[in-house]
Amino acid sequence: MQRWRAGTGGELLAEFLGTFVLILIGCGSVAVAVAGLPGSERQTDPFGAANWLIIAWGWGLAVVFGVYVAGGVSGAHINPAVTLAFAVRRGFSWAKVPLYWLAQLVGAFLAAALVYAVYAPAIDAFNASEQIADRSGSLSTFAIFATYPAPYFNGGLWGPLLDQIVGTAILLALIAALIDKRNQAPGANTGAFLIGLVVVAIGLTFGTNAGYAINPARDLGPRLWTWIEGWGRLAFPGSGDYFGTYWWVPIVGPLIGGVIGIVVYDLFIGQVLAARNPEGPDGGGASRVPEE
Amino acid sequence: MQRWRAGTGGELLAEFLGTFVLILIGCGSVAVAVAGLPGSERQTDPFGAANWLIIAWGWGLAVVFGVYVAGGVSGAHINPAVTLAFAVRRGFSWAKVPLYWLAQLVGAFLAAALVYAVYAPAIDAFNASEQIADRSGSLSTFAIFATYPAPYFNGGLWGPLLDQIVGTAILLALIAALIDKRNQAPGANTGAFLIGLVVVAIGLTFGTNAGYAINPARDLGPRLWTWIEGWGRLAFPGSGDYFGTYWWVPIVGPLIGGVIGIVVYDLFIGQVLAARNPEGPDGGGASRVPEE
Amino acid sequence: MQRWRAGTGGELLAEFLGTFVLILIGCGSVAVAVAGLPGSERQTDPFGAANWLIIAWGWGLAVVFGVYVAGGVSGAHINPAVTLAFAVRRGFSWAKVPLYWLAQLVGAFLAAALVYAVYAPAIDAFNASEQIADRSGSLSTFAIFATYPAPYFNGGLWGPLLDQIVGTAILLALIAALIDKRNQAPGANTGAFLIGLVVVAIGLTFGTNAGYAINPARDLGPRLWTWIEGWGRLAFPGSGDYFGTYWWVPIVGPLIGGVIGIVVYDLFIGQVLAARNPEGPDGGGASRVPEE
Amino acid sequence: MQRWRAGTGGELLAEFLGTFVLILIGCGSVAVAVAGLPGSERQTDPFGAANWLIIAWGWGLAVVFGVYVAGGVSGAHINPAVTLAFAVRRGFSWAKVPLYWLAQLVGAFLAAALVYAVYAPAIDAFNASEQIADRSGSLSTFAIFATYPAPYFNGGLWGPLLDQIVGTAILLALIAALIDKRNQAPGANTGAFLIGLVVVAIGLTFGTNAGYAINPARDLGPRLWTWIEGWGRLAFPGSGDYFGTYWWVPIVGPLIGGVIGIVVYDLFIGQVLAARNPEGPDGGGASRVPEE
Repeated sequence: MQRWRAGTGGELLAEFLGTFVLILIGCGSVAVAVAGLPGSERQTDPFGAANWLIIAWGWGLAVVFGVYVAGGVSGAHINPAVTLAFAVRRGFSWAKVPLYWLAQLVGAFLAAALVYAVYAPAIDAFNASEQIADRSGSLSTFAIFATYPAPYFNGGLWGPLLDQIVGTAILLALIAALIDKRNQAPGANTGAFLIGLVVVAIGLTFGTNAGYAINPARDLGPRLWTWIEGWGRLAFPGSGDYFGTYWWVPIVGPLIGGVIGIVVYDLFIGQVLAARNPEGPDGGGASRVPEE
Repeated sequence: MQRWRAGTGGELLAEFLGTFVLILIGCGSVAVAVAGLPGSERQTDPFGAANWLIIAWGWGLAVVFGVYVAGGVSGAHINPAVTLAFAVRRGFSWAKVPLYWLAQLVGAFLAAALVYAVYAPAIDAFNASEQIADRSGSLSTFAIFATYPAPYFNGGLWGPLLDQIVGTAILLALIAALIDKRNQAPGANTGAFLIGLVVVAIGLTFGTNAGYAINPARDLGPRLWTWIEGWGRLAFPGSGDYFGTYWWVPIVGPLIGGVIGIVVYDLFIGQVLAARNPEGPDGGGASRVPEE
Repeated sequence: MQRWRAGTGGELLAEFLGTFVLILIGCGSVAVAVAGLPGSERQTDPFGAANWLIIAWGWGLAVVFGVYVAGGVSGAHINPAVTLAFAVRRGFSWAKVPLYWLAQLVGAFLAAALVYAVYAPAIDAFNASEQIADRSGSLSTFAIFATYPAPYFNGGLWGPLLDQIVGTAILLALIAALIDKRNQAPGANTGAFLIGLVVVAIGLTFGTNAGYAINPARDLGPRLWTWIEGWGRLAFPGSGDYFGTYWWVPIVGPLIGGVIGIVVYDLFIGQVLAARNPEGPDGGGASRVPEE
Repeated sequence: MQRWRAGTGGELLAEFLGTFVLILIGCGSVAVAVAGLPGSERQTDPFGAANWLIIAWGWGLAVVFGVYVAGGVSGAHINPAVTLAFAVRRGFSWAKVPLYWLAQLVGAFLAAALVYAVYAPAIDAFNASEQIADRSGSLSTFAIFATYPAPYFNGGLWGPLLDQIVGTAILLALIAALIDKRNQAPGANTGAFLIGLVVVAIGLTFGTNAGYAINPARDLGPRLWTWIEGWGRLAFPGSGDYFGTYWWVPIVGPLIGGVIGIVVYDLFIGQVLAARNPEGPDGGGASRVPEE
């Protein structure tokens, strides 16, 4: 038993595995909706309403179990936007922020590789049935891994950026509520379950404008995988291409939105709870899901 | 830290933010079902069964998290019908009733504005694809924000009024059960989760007659937004129009239904529990979700 | 506060209201699937897979909340098959059995009347759109209230009877597990939630052969309502009609199946737990959902 | 009360009944999706997205209740891969491994027989409507009971084997997290609920490549039933047939994957938790779901 595991090293292992589980299950759900369900014969819209339920619950349960895996060790941020928001408003160590971010990104990248390993035959069969010879022309299978904006934005990035800011603000405001013991934080260690339901909710309500990355690692990690595995141009289009330089939106948007979300919670709720009990703990909850 | 936050001022902040979260997530789910899912190409009925599951779970989770956000401060009424029912039967201060109502209404109105900001491109693309030039002719996108009765009522308002009374009576009777510690109130602060499931249930079972507002602020706030943002006539039709003066039904119906619901609970269950334990607490539970 | 409420009278009020809630929500979900969702225009099979999800979750949540309403007073049987099984194996008073059954049946009958009041316009619009002049020819709207066997049984009743026995045996075996504190009974008063999920499970897995009544009051109460409200022949067909005298199957099947289910639980699990702790309580759990 | 029930005999009864419940509910959900829903008239793909939601929630709830039934007695492995992984890493008695395996297999086999008894009319009607005279040509109804790989594997077994290893590794890694009290194991006996949600997640995300057996007994038991009940060749095809000798994949894959999953959890999380608290318990949790 090495000593390094007891400190930050162990936390990074947990962030790695938690994010790995998040992406493995989450991207897997899109793989089922896009390429898995119909075998090699496609009959319905890959993003029809019933498929969307598969994706929304898939990503939500991905969060549930990513948090249960890592929660007791690192607090299970499994999202750079959560790490940043906790550094800004919950006293999380700034020195650890880049380490957490790296662990999250590596976990996401390798999980995307495993999703690819398991689904490559399904992906190839899908593209064959759609008569797509080159993966860089297969937006549907790219969607298994990373996000892109809806066509009605016509390549504009302010709309998707607002979407990412709002989605991640919801995420962090609600996480702040769910881990705040001065409020009604769910007990019996069911916090991870409810945090996953937040992501189900975001998927069902703010998921279709731009695929609800709401997590820079969740988007960039798998995007890097698609870049090296044949989807190339779709991963990082040039400014002249369809949705141009969108790839930075699901990085910057969530980082901004997460801080906004936790600040809003503190302004409207956290300060009220603190004002009621001035002797009580100052912060709005620990930087991690409370243990029972 | 201002002192006013420790009193009613803080409660109003919580009711504002809780209702804001409710409408943001709730209306967002209808936006996904109507205008988000297919991008700009519509292929299926916006209120088909799979879309309805998105809407029912969306609104249910909206309630779950609206209650978790505000519960520890204000009791998370986030619904004027709940506030009224608690004033009538649970000793909630009558003086606070109009203040709570106002906070809820403002929260709902501003959340509708944010939903609009995020979904305006999707809404415009939807209307363009349906070849609808004027929003006041777009009932489907109006439905993202506010409710209207099913065509089979032929403009009659008694049917929708009964529907709203029954739906809200179910809501309040079940809330009364879920917060009554003499009964089997869920512990470990899972009450908010189950209250949200009540709204999932109402959506799946009494949602299609008139869109299950069951909450005056939920309907009136976003309706006011649509009124100023181009849906005009649909928001407040004249008496000669399709569904005429329906707009008062989701205000009056829930206020009546909520009181009926909590009275029914007290007559059939609350008084039994009180009769069994005459020394015990008189009321049927506090005016807020019990904390663990 | 009358004294009679503190005794059996109060329990009957609770069984009445609990079963009323069960039928109100449960039958409401079928009304949404059959007649509510498409307004007056039908486009899809009323029992397609997405509609079936509405029905299965609707009935499951109906049980969740029926149990939360009545649980603290009467134990929330809200099902004559549960009452019988608890009398046979959990020491529930035989003298109360007919009283509970009557309260359950009256609650189910009156709830069906309220469902009808709310959905009559939708039902009439559905029949008009299907060009059905006489309700006694409208099997789809009859299905809102009561059950009937799938056509592939060709009028045979042994298949549906086996289906009802198996479905109700699952129900009682799992209720017995969920309320057995010697086993892993869920705490924090979440038992009612999980008992509702049992009914979701039965709906998703044994619901299509004959509509999973698994509760004599749930079927007979609403069936009586349809009998007097125009569906006549469908409610109680003669032996020469399609599905003949089926109406007794969802009464007798559940009563048999429930006893089998609880006996199976006791033989395989209850006696093991008792053998491990011979000094412990003899029975397999109280006749009611345990309180925290 | 026989003494043998208090020891291993009682555990085997529990494993038998738990696995029986698992298969009864699980296979029942596929029967509903394939042969139940449309009566005898098929209109939609039996494995469309909405049907897949029925199957994923059906199998997930099957696990929930299989674990609640058996958990307090045997720890509710109800899966040979769980039993093996607990023997390898959680000190479960090797001597009991073959006994547990046998109890699980017998439970699965007999439950398949009961599913068949209830659904034989639906199965025959389905085959008649598809004009399939011989069950050994009816892959859809075979799918009610056992699994087979997607056509895009073109008969290759490495793809399905990897799929089974990954799926079962997820299962065991997450079970290990959910029962590890040093981590954030859910309390209030809600562990069984969350373990079932793991299987919902796997179904929604790794379910379509090869039917997510992730449990040797779940696949082999019902497969043996189909072998003797008319599906013959589909149950155990020869090496020249479509999907050849696939039948060993859902036996070997889960056994390998389960061990990998629990080892991964221990390397990344378990050893960290042990390093933090060297005086604490050595193992990564008991071999059973923790009781409250």
